[in-house]
Amino acid sequence: MYKKITDKDVKALKEIFGDNNTYVGDEIAEEYAKDEIGLIVAYPEVRVVAKNKEQVSKVMKYAHKENIPVTVRGAGTGLVGGAVPVLGGILLDLSGMDKILELDHTNMTLKVQPGVLMLDIYEEVLKHDLFYGPDPGEKTATIGGTISTNAGGMRAIKYGTTREWVRGLEVVLANGEVINVGGKVVKNSSGYPLKELFIGTEGTLGIIVEATLKLTSLPKYSTSLLVPFKNTATAVKAAAQLIEKHVTPTAVEYVNQPSLKYSKEFLGKHMPHDIYDAYLLLSYDGTSKDALRKDIDRASELCMELGAIDVYLIDTDERNSSVWTIRGAFLEAIKASTPLMDELDVVVPRAVIPEYLEYTEEVSKKLGIRMPYFGHVGDGNLHIYFCKDDMDLKVFEEKLDEAFDLMYSKAFSLGGLTSGEHAVGYLKKEYLATQIGSTQLELMKGIKRLFDPKNILNPSKIVDI
Amino acid sequence: MYKKITDKDVKALKEIFGDNNTYVGDEIAEEYAKDEIGLIVAYPEVRVVAKNKEQVSKVMKYAHKENIPVTVRGAGTGLVGGAVPVLGGILLDLSGMDKILELDHTNMTLKVQPGVLMLDIYEEVLKHDLFYGPDPGEKTATIGGTISTNAGGMRAIKYGTTREWVRGLEVVLANGEVINVGGKVVKNSSGYPLKELFIGTEGTLGIIVEATLKLTSLPKYSTSLLVPFKNTATAVKAAAQLIEKHVTPTAVEYVNQPSLKYSKEFLGKHMPHDIYDAYLLLSYDGTSKDALRKDIDRASELCMELGAIDVYLIDTDERNSSVWTIRGAFLEAIKASTPLMDELDVVVPRAVIPEYLEYTEEVSKKLGIRMPYFGHVGDGNLHIYFCKDDMDLKVFEEKLDEAFDLMYSKAFSLGGLTSGEHAVGYLKKEYLATQIGSTQLELMKGIKRLFDPKNILNPSKIVDI
Repeated sequence: MYKKITDKDVKALKEIFGDNNTYVGDEIAEEYAKDEIGLIVAYPEVRVVAKNKEQVSKVMKYAHKENIPVTVRGAGTGLVGGAVPVLGGILLDLSGMDKILELDHTNMTLKVQPGVLMLDIYEEVLKHDLFYGPDPGEKTATIGGTISTNAGGMRAIKYGTTREWVRGLEVVLANGEVINVGGKVVKNSSGYPLKELFIGTEGTLGIIVEATLKLTSLPKYSTSLLVPFKNTATAVKAAAQLIEKHVTPTAVEYVNQPSLKYSKEFLGKHMPHDIYDAYLLLSYDGTSKDALRKDIDRASELCMELGAIDVYLIDTDERNSSVWTIRGAFLEAIKASTPLMDELDVVVPRAVIPEYLEYTEEVSKKLGIRMPYFGHVGDGNLHIYFCKDDMDLKVFEEKLDEAFDLMYSKAFSLGGLTSGEHAVGYLKKEYLATQIGSTQLELMKGIKRLFDPKNILNPSKIVDI
Repeated sequence: MYKKITDKDVKALKEIFGDNNTYVGDEIAEEYAKDEIGLIVAYPEVRVVAKNKEQVSKVMKYAHKENIPVTVRGAGTGLVGGAVPVLGGILLDLSGMDKILELDHTNMTLKVQPGVLMLDIYEEVLKHDLFYGPDPGEKTATIGGTISTNAGGMRAIKYGTTREWVRGLEVVLANGEVINVGGKVVKNSSGYPLKELFIGTEGTLGIIVEATLKLTSLPKYSTSLLVPFKNTATAVKAAAQLIEKHVTPTAVEYVNQPSLKYSKEFLGKHMPHDIYDAYLLLSYDGTSKDALRKDIDRASELCMELGAIDVYLIDTDERNSSVWTIRGAFLEAIKASTPLMDELDVVVPRAVIPEYLEYTEEVSKKLGIRMPYFGHVGDGNLHIYFCKDDMDLKVFEEKLDEAFDLMYSKAFSLGGLTSGEHAVGYLKKEYLATQIGSTQLELMKGIKRLFDPKNILNPSKIVDI
């Protein structure tokens, strides 16, 4: 069992972090006991705010010696309980390690501390006509958090997920040792891919204290198309065809009437042309205005051939901002529509999205639970919400279990996986175990034991050992 | 210690693979005792040729029970001894598992057996106007081999390495169990990234028996520029600037006079405009002819601003074929110029290439060893050769050790890594150990022990346990 924090431990932590950056008992605000989804509440015994990697190394040496669990937290925008200290111990807050350390023009890399917010990264690189590909919906997430969940976002269909944009990492291991993996290099076939093991693994194998990101030159021009279809199936099938038959879009988002309604209620403003049941919201980008116009023209033609009702060019800043603000508010809007909810971040092969969404409607009807959804249909990553509404909490929890079981079974039977981009955390562990089966589960447990034999790094997340 | 193969084992293997696909003693041709570099020669005790994944699972169950090492071989085009059975045992030849199993248009994936050759993959996808990004120089390598080395090639600067194009894998583990990791999905944040652990790890953690590759729509147009510079430093610095200030090229190759000379001697034909000391060979691609022309125009302007002597458009099939055939023959040409050689496949940050190449010239002079080189300067991956020529073998081996020590020390001090794309295999183990240090080495050994506790999967490669 873990050691419970004593006054002596608090004193030791204050020596590392200073009195002002060490919080205990009532000093710990409620927000540090949960994440964005708010379904699990667990207070840490102590919260410390780190300013540099030396402190992170020191606290891990101490926690390792004393057998105290350490959970890392960035901005707390996760949706699976990944940053919630479910077993107490130390909450290691890295949001104060928020410096952009170096923009290297020749190597086209950006070196950052883990607490830098995504919006600050976009702003910084844009100043230099440079580009960082991953674009998760939550711009106030930290880069450390998006690396730890291998966040994807809207542009993954063209630019890949976070994994593909991380060149190098500096990592503090469970015992406080510091290692560097990867670097400012483009290729790497040098032994077992340790860098990959720290990406998407939610701080359970090591703590990222510095990241070197890949940048590219900026695709200067981009345009979106809002394309209504008569129903979901036609829209989603058209999406797949568009991707195969034309240049790869930057984003292929599915939008439907219920999501628009929630967004309208939440934001108090509406999207242009919002009278249809189902839409694709497409973006294309490029470095040449003329070429982009041609791509857009061909995409419009293709959409009409594939059954679109109309194609609206979102070509002014005002229209662009309106459409994407509405799209960007879906999660918040759905959250605001219900006192409590949980979410499914499943990823399925693109070809089975129509079948899966049809099944979603069936489950919603069968269980009598409101299940709004939207998603990155270009990459098969769907976000489906289960809303408590005015249901009794116990009834909701039962229905939630049943709904998750049904939805995950169906996804797995269609070749889908537990999580596309929000990761596993605490809430999705059992579904991951079902998805992968005992052989892979044992391998995953073995990896956890290898990197963290005392099980002090964000324990009880992803797998239990 | 491993069990030596007995008549009883041979009989058991013949039951799995058939008499015609099981070779022992003199029946084993010399080529199966080495790879392309030819520096290590070690015969297997038995060579079996697999036709399906069931046989691979069966042989691993048998080898696991009997404690016999198994080394997988594809086309044998490796350069680090990765496919050489240095500890004897079974050579498991997968070159007969050469079927393209499925092209899925909606999910844009290609499912293949591991023995399919790269040139067959390119041919197949091109028929459907589709595209597979990685383009290693050796087109007769197998896809299994390129996944197992995380091959990069010329297009990595724009399209990434093999890792980024593998969606899913079916893998036979050391004990014969079969697992599936990833799938036809675009995103994946579902637990520890097992798929990543089978990529670039040279068959030491599992045997890839099926791979699902990502495809994209085809960039239909491409053009190359041959750009002479007055010297290496100017050329290489211009390369970095071009990448930052313009659209990302498909390829940025460095070509110099010595390589051209070897190629001319080897092929008996010469490249147009081959009178200069140093060149960049640039490619750009796109889906619009007009946009590509604009990209090429701007690239040409930029090259002249960055000190190019001239810019030659390689715009006819004949010129294109001539230039790229010459470039493609560098490795073979250098190999033909000496009775024996070894190679360095180092990767360094782009910014330090000029310094590193200058150092290369110094080492060559200091040690009196001919060291021709060429490389993917867009991504910092250099191929440097050490030629024996008429040196005494013992003298060559001593100089080789010294040269490797010097070249790797310098690379590591500049943030470089052991291998960019040819991997570690048998020949580069000690340099990997130096690069990563003891903490990472122990983690790598731990991973190997976890996946292969009996150390029967391609033992003595990457790390020794």
